[in-house]
Amino acid sequence: MDGGAHCNRRTVEEVFRDFKGRYSGLIKALTIDVEEFYQRCDPEKENLCLYGFPSEQWDVSLPAEVVPPEIPEPALGINFARDGMQEKDWLALVAVNGDAWLLSVAFYFGARFGFDKADRKRLFDMINDLPTIFEVVTGAAKKKVTEKSSVSNHGSTKSKSNLKRVKEILLSLFSGKHSRVYADITYSLPVFV
Amino acid sequence: MDGGAHCNRRTVEEVFRDFKGRYSGLIKALTIDVEEFYQRCDPEKENLCLYGFPSEQWDVSLPAEVVPPEIPEPALGINFARDGMQEKDWLALVAVNGDAWLLSVAFYFGARFGFDKADRKRLFDMINDLPTIFEVVTGAAKKKVTEKSSVSNHGSTKSKSNLKRVKEILLSLFSGKHSRVYADITYSLPVFV
Repeated sequence: MDGGAHCNRRTVEEVFRDFKGRYSGLIKALTIDVEEFYQRCDPEKENLCLYGFPSEQWDVSLPAEVVPPEIPEPALGINFARDGMQEKDWLALVAVNGDAWLLSVAFYFGARFGFDKADRKRLFDMINDLPTIFEVVTGAAKKKVTEKSSVSNHGSTKSKSNLKRVKEILLSLFSGKHSRVYADITYSLPVFV
Repeated sequence: MDGGAHCNRRTVEEVFRDFKGRYSGLIKALTIDVEEFYQRCDPEKENLCLYGFPSEQWDVSLPAEVVPPEIPEPALGINFARDGMQEKDWLALVAVNGDAWLLSVAFYFGARFGFDKADRKRLFDMINDLPTIFEVVTGAAKKKVTEKSSVSNHGSTKSKSNLKRVKEILLSLFSGKHSRVYADITYSLPVFV
């Protein structure tokens, strides 16, 4: 829907669909694809950004060449921070920046499509019903340490790999079963504060 | 409160205070100080950004040199778009980017301060009770054309200057009397769509 910015009025549902696609892409980058993501964020390279797309894909690339950009841009230079902090802290930092970026993109579209106060409230409530990327990433990280699953619908998951666990988290997110994940991590302070 | 990102837990009210200060600064730049703002955005200069500060001040300057930045950055290169479109459209574009930026900063702080779903909802509702910068700017621009005041608490304002009128709008915004401004412009589609 990047191109959608050129179109006329869109609905709250369309903007939320765009949001959810990008959100899914960023979560994949920071959980299932985290090893590839880490490698792609080489501090030796130029300023890199993490992009999430409506197609649920993600990419690490240079910022848009056209300025001002068509839509708000994600945090610049995430790769420069990678080796200066613990991996889990760096991932949490990228996650928080991802949440902030997705919100700015969604409400940028909302403004361009003429959303009023009620539309904005409805869009935010739909977004806020999902756990933040930060909550998903730090929740998964916490579970990696404690070897405790809060999303499995069956008993112990001690033997499950972290990859399998984050896949469960993603599955639970998109099947509406994320309330326990959410409740379990919602009060955890950012690990990098 | 930029430095606040280093502190521990803050309240929703503190983050909203930070938001409102920056919001006030951006509105001043795009209304009362619009002539100075326009001149500061010289397309011949490098990539410039419009910053709003918790102190209700604004500035046009180069982006943060430190990457990744401490907090989300505003749209880059707004000055390059200035002469390529009508002034009112350019101001609306800057306004929408300003709204998106303020939202990303507020929720970035929210994440760093450990806001949960209820905190985020409360913060958004406080923010959403204010008209967006885009609504204020395009509303003021529309009134400039129609010579019609929707915020004056007394009769005709035909003789009032635009400067005096936007001062009234700002006054009404921060005295809780902005409902009529809001109602008057909330359904206007972005002028640059």
